[in-house]
Amino acid sequence: MTPATTSARPPGRPRAGIDATVFAATLSTVHELGYAGATMDRIAAAAGVAKTTIYRRWPSKGALIADCLVDALGPAPLKDTSREENISSAIRWAAAKIGEPGLGAAFAGVFVDAVSDPALREILSTRLQDPYRIALQDALGEPENRVLLFIDVVVGTLLHRMGMTGEPMVDADVTALVEMVLRHFADPA
Amino acid sequence: MTPATTSARPPGRPRAGIDATVFAATLSTVHELGYAGATMDRIAAAAGVAKTTIYRRWPSKGALIADCLVDALGPAPLKDTSREENISSAIRWAAAKIGEPGLGAAFAGVFVDAVSDPALREILSTRLQDPYRIALQDALGEPENRVLLFIDVVVGTLLHRMGMTGEPMVDADVTALVEMVLRHFADPA
Repeated sequence: MTPATTSARPPGRPRAGIDATVFAATLSTVHELGYAGATMDRIAAAAGVAKTTIYRRWPSKGALIADCLVDALGPAPLKDTSREENISSAIRWAAAKIGEPGLGAAFAGVFVDAVSDPALREILSTRLQDPYRIALQDALGEPENRVLLFIDVVVGTLLHRMGMTGEPMVDADVTALVEMVLRHFADPA
Repeated sequence: MTPATTSARPPGRPRAGIDATVFAATLSTVHELGYAGATMDRIAAAAGVAKTTIYRRWPSKGALIADCLVDALGPAPLKDTSREENISSAIRWAAAKIGEPGLGAAFAGVFVDAVSDPALREILSTRLQDPYRIALQDALGEPENRVLLFIDVVVGTLLHRMGMTGEPMVDADVTALVEMVLRHFADPA
């Protein structure tokens, strides 16, 4: 049971439950209709909740997508082992996640909206990217600028492949990407 | 451009002139309103031409953006010198182009639409990517799979940075990207 508060949400639907329902509906709607077609209206309909319920939690589609991505991605697998293992497992994890239905399209779509939306860039930077950036800086012992390039290279490459082919990157190419990045980061900055 | 034939275009407006006008209007509209906001209606208004004139040439926004990008990018600078110079100059050229107003946003936007649009992926692959892929395969003596990874890494990284920061990648990071890619491609496959 969630603790009783003064919230106006309906009984029996704790916030975490609604969040999970809306996130699942977001990814399935993006998967089915593409990023542009997945309007807040359609996401609300797919989730079976009122549109006002969604807007009460997320003021914009960008904010919803960012939180949905944070939820779907979870923490990066940085196991405090070697630099090489951490780099390799982080890239393979990103490749697998971006291949999940709806996730790659949601990821790519929100970045494009961000190109012309400074408020959304701020959300993406602080809520989505910063936790990974900080975890990577700690795990790899690398400065911010090198970790930001790491994220650009890994995520950008995987999303570009998804856009050009409509499919996740095959293992042989993920391995080539891992080798390219590993060689660059073989020695700490 | 196709030679003038039995086209119904108005006298005094050769096709190349209309194309150039529409392409310029496309980039400025995307720059101003973002990819999603740059509808065919708004592009036609900015170009000062009828919407039917645009649809007669490009059946979809994706097709228009793809041709606009081909026109704006022009040929890659592959000067038949060393592999290293060709790789380096191609990456720096891509970074400069993606930093031009509207171009990065148009590029990123059309890829995202392509994630959920197989017909658009076909257009992007054949009209936009293939000429560069073939030129790079020839200039670098690399097989298709390695050149496709090269394109994913370079374009994906530059577009991701644009999405996260709203700005083109700074020179120091472009140089780091060049070094990463050069090391990977130092020896032919």
